[in-house]
Amino acid sequence: MGIVLGANQYGKAETRLVRVTRDGGTHTLTDLNVSVSLAGDLVDAHLSGDNGHVLPTDTQKNTVYAFARRHGVTSVEAFGLLLARHFVASQEPIHAVRVRLESYSWTRLGPHSFQRDGAEVRTATVTCDRSGATVVSGVTDLVLLNSTGSEFVGYRQDGYTTLAPATDRILATAVTARWRHASADGDWDASYAAVRSALVSGFVETYSRSLQQTLYAMGERVLTERPDVVEVRMSMPNRHHFAVDLTPFGLDNPNEVFYAADRPYGLIEGTVLRDDAPAAGLAWW
Amino acid sequence: MGIVLGANQYGKAETRLVRVTRDGGTHTLTDLNVSVSLAGDLVDAHLSGDNGHVLPTDTQKNTVYAFARRHGVTSVEAFGLLLARHFVASQEPIHAVRVRLESYSWTRLGPHSFQRDGAEVRTATVTCDRSGATVVSGVTDLVLLNSTGSEFVGYRQDGYTTLAPATDRILATAVTARWRHASADGDWDASYAAVRSALVSGFVETYSRSLQQTLYAMGERVLTERPDVVEVRMSMPNRHHFAVDLTPFGLDNPNEVFYAADRPYGLIEGTVLRDDAPAAGLAWW
Amino acid sequence: MGIVLGANQYGKAETRLVRVTRDGGTHTLTDLNVSVSLAGDLVDAHLSGDNGHVLPTDTQKNTVYAFARRHGVTSVEAFGLLLARHFVASQEPIHAVRVRLESYSWTRLGPHSFQRDGAEVRTATVTCDRSGATVVSGVTDLVLLNSTGSEFVGYRQDGYTTLAPATDRILATAVTARWRHASADGDWDASYAAVRSALVSGFVETYSRSLQQTLYAMGERVLTERPDVVEVRMSMPNRHHFAVDLTPFGLDNPNEVFYAADRPYGLIEGTVLRDDAPAAGLAWW
Amino acid sequence: MGIVLGANQYGKAETRLVRVTRDGGTHTLTDLNVSVSLAGDLVDAHLSGDNGHVLPTDTQKNTVYAFARRHGVTSVEAFGLLLARHFVASQEPIHAVRVRLESYSWTRLGPHSFQRDGAEVRTATVTCDRSGATVVSGVTDLVLLNSTGSEFVGYRQDGYTTLAPATDRILATAVTARWRHASADGDWDASYAAVRSALVSGFVETYSRSLQQTLYAMGERVLTERPDVVEVRMSMPNRHHFAVDLTPFGLDNPNEVFYAADRPYGLIEGTVLRDDAPAAGLAWW
Repeated sequence: MGIVLGANQYGKAETRLVRVTRDGGTHTLTDLNVSVSLAGDLVDAHLSGDNGHVLPTDTQKNTVYAFARRHGVTSVEAFGLLLARHFVASQEPIHAVRVRLESYSWTRLGPHSFQRDGAEVRTATVTCDRSGATVVSGVTDLVLLNSTGSEFVGYRQDGYTTLAPATDRILATAVTARWRHASADGDWDASYAAVRSALVSGFVETYSRSLQQTLYAMGERVLTERPDVVEVRMSMPNRHHFAVDLTPFGLDNPNEVFYAADRPYGLIEGTVLRDDAPAAGLAWW
Repeated sequence: MGIVLGANQYGKAETRLVRVTRDGGTHTLTDLNVSVSLAGDLVDAHLSGDNGHVLPTDTQKNTVYAFARRHGVTSVEAFGLLLARHFVASQEPIHAVRVRLESYSWTRLGPHSFQRDGAEVRTATVTCDRSGATVVSGVTDLVLLNSTGSEFVGYRQDGYTTLAPATDRILATAVTARWRHASADGDWDASYAAVRSALVSGFVETYSRSLQQTLYAMGERVLTERPDVVEVRMSMPNRHHFAVDLTPFGLDNPNEVFYAADRPYGLIEGTVLRDDAPAAGLAWW
Repeated sequence: MGIVLGANQYGKAETRLVRVTRDGGTHTLTDLNVSVSLAGDLVDAHLSGDNGHVLPTDTQKNTVYAFARRHGVTSVEAFGLLLARHFVASQEPIHAVRVRLESYSWTRLGPHSFQRDGAEVRTATVTCDRSGATVVSGVTDLVLLNSTGSEFVGYRQDGYTTLAPATDRILATAVTARWRHASADGDWDASYAAVRSALVSGFVETYSRSLQQTLYAMGERVLTERPDVVEVRMSMPNRHHFAVDLTPFGLDNPNEVFYAADRPYGLIEGTVLRDDAPAAGLAWW
Repeated sequence: MGIVLGANQYGKAETRLVRVTRDGGTHTLTDLNVSVSLAGDLVDAHLSGDNGHVLPTDTQKNTVYAFARRHGVTSVEAFGLLLARHFVASQEPIHAVRVRLESYSWTRLGPHSFQRDGAEVRTATVTCDRSGATVVSGVTDLVLLNSTGSEFVGYRQDGYTTLAPATDRILATAVTARWRHASADGDWDASYAAVRSALVSGFVETYSRSLQQTLYAMGERVLTERPDVVEVRMSMPNRHHFAVDLTPFGLDNPNEVFYAADRPYGLIEGTVLRDDAPAAGLAWW
């Protein structure tokens, strides 16, 4: 019996990059959070502290900033591909790279003035090894609510079940979705806008018998509308809104007054994919 | 020498209320966080544990929900006034009440579907005693950025000063502003929209020699445009964006690539008011 | 009627300083978060953007680090006094200074190894003007719980009261306390340890008829035991623990199984002071 | 080509349970956060909204509380096993269960008084299907620091490398570790204490040439000392402490004054395991 090193990776996390592009007096703004992870021949680093194969995380940070100047940032996916391919191509001991990016959106207020939008964040994860690259796009903290058009009935019961069936309830969630692309070429901004729209309309237009059903409808709509996407993974907390019992005060409550609870919450996680989706490889690393 | 009870208050904080109004098939949504504080004749409660003057915080929570059903919620200011006046009028031992409210905004996606907007939060603080009520409206986490039109030069220097003058820099902040109204009557939603707009345009349209100057310009604009407002208090962190030195990589950086820092940060706080503003009374409690 | 500048201040917030002292092979560690605010003759800075009276916040940060090297850090109070007096003495346009400090504690694991302790944070606020300095010490996020020895009965009721009296309940809170010292000289570490101990024993040893009563008992104990302290201000959320109703499952619940709720929560705030306490001056700025 | 449901699960997350055990006048306290996930035959729930196989998440919450009363909580691992086995055994459509638990520790202050300890959290993940159960124990937010005994030299360099070698630096991290047990029987509290101790002493006693080396040393020590553990997974951010350049102020800085940075940070993740470790099965779900 021996003790061995298993899967491992390292890198610089959360490099905060703001890129201004000046087109005459009109500026555009890109606001990113970039995290790099490298994996490869790193046994000596772990066992003996020999750092000969270790490109410093500080260098990774520098590369993010230098690439932003040299190449610009057209989309999180494209910028992630540039970075991931660079590390795989230039660092012989490194066999696989993952770049995770978050993009914060701003609304234009003037030629060089901006207001930060909400909690919703566009994400991308690019993975790359010697055989090629994969791209996963995503969104997180997209908070949606239907104030009706949702029920929860006909569920399984046991001796610990006290929940009453609900034929009309609020359905609210904070969507985290990630979707895998068929290829590493794409019109990333157009694709993002279309997928986001499909997720939102899937939520809005589905009469919901459960959050599971809504999740599936959202994923299915993405795959139906976007041939470039082969798989969607979603995580959706059920942000419970409980109708308050106002009868002690002589008041009815026809689903108008709700308590928005923090914890606990239901958590629904699921995958919708094509039955002929190619193997995922490193995509979900 | 004796030991005595000084200023004190108690109440229920952060009652999360979601109010749905159903106008046929079209719903409207109000999403609030309500915190109540009561002050008055509470010496016995503190010294002997006699709770005869203590209305339970649980009752305060119930009142929030019941009032939302009975009266609806037209604005945070109006709802706060209803609650504050109720407690002062109905609880003889209570002499002063403060109600703080946060309102989270949602964008309509359909007749009964909504998406939560960003971090920006509308706030109100209503205070009330036997002599009347005061209203302070506000906004928090309004994040603004100018990518040029900002400098910082000509500052005082001492032996610990190493900062180089900046003739062109990013100016970014998260505005927290609160403004005191001349009276407790108002068209609260219209006033809020106008003040918010004045704050934003004050930020966007001011060539900034310092964040202090920008702060004052924003407050001055509110007071100039809104006769119903007599005082504005602002807190604005300087969210530093540092241009990255790319010369080690053979690259220039004409204010295009920035590191967005977390801490430390400048913090600018100031008040702009009318020289004939009435006494503030309980307003800033 | 004119528009004027009111109260204002500015400074560098949250400078994170870790100070290692090497006594041979044995190190000691001080881990601080320092926030400076300056006030004075800053009208021109606000009205015309003339920065001649503005010492950059970057310089304030440099001063924190340089003073840590030059003078060391013996306690948050002493270090805050050094900084506050320096700015008042050296910056003619600055008339008043506030330095807020947080200290994070670490447990020794070896001669130069440490483990960060919990959420509890020691704080200090030092204020200074030309007439002298005041010191307020404090603690925050000190989380305490009594699993019995607490009741809540005999409270005021109205038409919105549904709460049942509790003769045996959990009492839990996260104490934020700040106490004002009679003078700016003190044995700060010894004083802190004694006050903290008085707060804790006041919580533990008081049979509680309400959180208000417990708060007062804690403050009174501090003032009784520490002649150097003249005023204590406390803010204590009531972290509700609700006994779960297990009767649907054929089980009783003799105060053994609780749901720890997040929001809403009671919030109790109060002051205990000597009736001959000197005027507070800038202390609570 | 068709669209299909892939991996999915659902459950109640973050049920906050506080369990008091009364042994005469001396109480003990257990403070948990419990998250349940169920997987199985849930296609109809997703595709048609048929909830016949869906045990409500509300029922799962009830079960947590009822089991706490009926069986008590001896350790997070044992309580997780009880819950996981219950759902697999009693819910025919459910084929696999994961229970994640966090335990917050409290220090005794008296017979029924407690103070919450720090950020460090004990964790467990229990997974179970018809073939058996696996147990993964863990710790998170264990913050450790060596003020010397750490270097970083001899690393790989490229055109983006500007980092200077460090022969004496602060090494600080917040350890998240999870370790897989060989069997689902164990003296869980004793095992936890021993593994935690091995992790800490591995950090303290290793002269560090890199955080990777320290990580491996910590994991190796756990496996050497604990035959019941077959695999350790760790995630350790490098909490950078940068020595401040004080030369502009005429001061040296012999590694005594540091700036504790927030972002970006290095992130080191790795696995140490036995070469004959049994297959992991559901353990890392």
